[in-house]
Amino acid sequence: MTTSLDGRELAAEIRADAAAGAAALTAAGRPPHLAVVTATTDEASAWYVRSIARAAAKVGIACDVDGEETSAGITAALRRLSADLGVHGIILQTPLPGGARLAELAGAIAPGKDVDGANPLSLGRLVAGLPAFTPATAEAVLAMLDHYQVKAAGRRAVVVGRSVVIGKPVAHLLLDRDATVTICHSRTPDLPAITAQAGILVVAAGRPGLIGPAHVAPGTTVIDVGTNATADGGLAGDVDPAVAEVAGALSPVPGGVGPVTTALLLRHVTQAAAATGTAGEA
Amino acid sequence: MTTSLDGRELAAEIRADAAAGAAALTAAGRPPHLAVVTATTDEASAWYVRSIARAAAKVGIACDVDGEETSAGITAALRRLSADLGVHGIILQTPLPGGARLAELAGAIAPGKDVDGANPLSLGRLVAGLPAFTPATAEAVLAMLDHYQVKAAGRRAVVVGRSVVIGKPVAHLLLDRDATVTICHSRTPDLPAITAQAGILVVAAGRPGLIGPAHVAPGTTVIDVGTNATADGGLAGDVDPAVAEVAGALSPVPGGVGPVTTALLLRHVTQAAAATGTAGEA
Repeated sequence: MTTSLDGRELAAEIRADAAAGAAALTAAGRPPHLAVVTATTDEASAWYVRSIARAAAKVGIACDVDGEETSAGITAALRRLSADLGVHGIILQTPLPGGARLAELAGAIAPGKDVDGANPLSLGRLVAGLPAFTPATAEAVLAMLDHYQVKAAGRRAVVVGRSVVIGKPVAHLLLDRDATVTICHSRTPDLPAITAQAGILVVAAGRPGLIGPAHVAPGTTVIDVGTNATADGGLAGDVDPAVAEVAGALSPVPGGVGPVTTALLLRHVTQAAAATGTAGEA
Repeated sequence: MTTSLDGRELAAEIRADAAAGAAALTAAGRPPHLAVVTATTDEASAWYVRSIARAAAKVGIACDVDGEETSAGITAALRRLSADLGVHGIILQTPLPGGARLAELAGAIAPGKDVDGANPLSLGRLVAGLPAFTPATAEAVLAMLDHYQVKAAGRRAVVVGRSVVIGKPVAHLLLDRDATVTICHSRTPDLPAITAQAGILVVAAGRPGLIGPAHVAPGTTVIDVGTNATADGGLAGDVDPAVAEVAGALSPVPGGVGPVTTALLLRHVTQAAAATGTAGEA
């Protein structure tokens, strides 16, 4: 029987950790503060931003939302917030105006406040094995594996999807854990033959139902990172639920990686705020 | 019969391009200038640095070598050279004093002068698909594939080695070309089973003779990036020469990727110098 890798328990643990950090910072007169910069025109994004703000409030992190209409406005806002001593974490929400690329604009986020690892400098430090904030979704995948004691070292890991925010950083994190990592994508022929070799399969392609039972070998741990909106207003993953009949373990959507991602993002904010304080005192 | 992927002809083409660029810059009163920062204590490194300086002189690029004894000295030198308007390209040579990491110190190299892509910001921009200088050895692998019209799109590529300067950036470059990429390393069990699936096999493990005929399927294109010193003062690759009996094509060591790497490094210097001029005029 397949194990369901529920993320809600782990997310609660991480949120508790963030809340303790936030309480200590607030007691020390330095309440943690997150700023979200978003394009004003996108409704789905606005919904997601409100959900982050609510989650932040629950753990004691203040959250401001800054709506901008142009790339120039976004860059100016990121620079202003980077210089603002009262702001500890900055998230730049996609989609961006005029098709601007996240990594391009996120270069204006101070690395110490780059809590979702969007600045290319953060990504480069991650790839080079230097300390940096990791994109929260990618980190959530590894946190799930750790929580459920899924060993990566010496195993074949297959990542489906090569985005800058998920697929690529996940591949590096798995490589750092001594997995042998294969990155597949929309141009990969014969995907099932490759995914069937995986001991760990991470799916972040943004295509609902892309991975079916024929893609997965018995016993594989499958982490579904897909978040596709359904017609009835719900959320569907990239993995067909029928995979549960084959896989050794499967993280569900919703209730898997998603809640862990938000919790890690909030913990990054308290970590950023704590580091700022330390640096200020040094 | 295996095709030998000689790098010398391609290197000569790139050097000619760099020489033309250097001549144009010099005629415009802006002679290109490369600075190499190196730890004074390493003899093998000193030999390599002298070879770069000679190659630079041949294409009309001035080259200074700055020997430093400590990480602090190196960082100060990199900052000074980054601010020096007369210097267009900066290389930080390894090994570094006291086991310092290249990516850590190379953060002090101005990105516009980072001709060997050593600054983590350059690496992050590369991974994010933004313009940046690419580590020359990694770029040389792709230049060899292009020169010999080896298609990467839709094929399985296997990279053996996960270094920040070669394995990881090569994997990203192959991914950008729509290959399905697997990264193997010292902790990969059953290496031959994985390398035998490769259409393109890039070997950068630093272990002479690691890859033998049993690792390679007939028809595979093998790029050997190994540069291991032999007892008689020569150079040996990571690939057993007997692989030539199986592979479709094999780049030799010496005479394969090596000369292309140096040529690309020099062309990066002329590109950096040309970009500086343009920015100055803008």
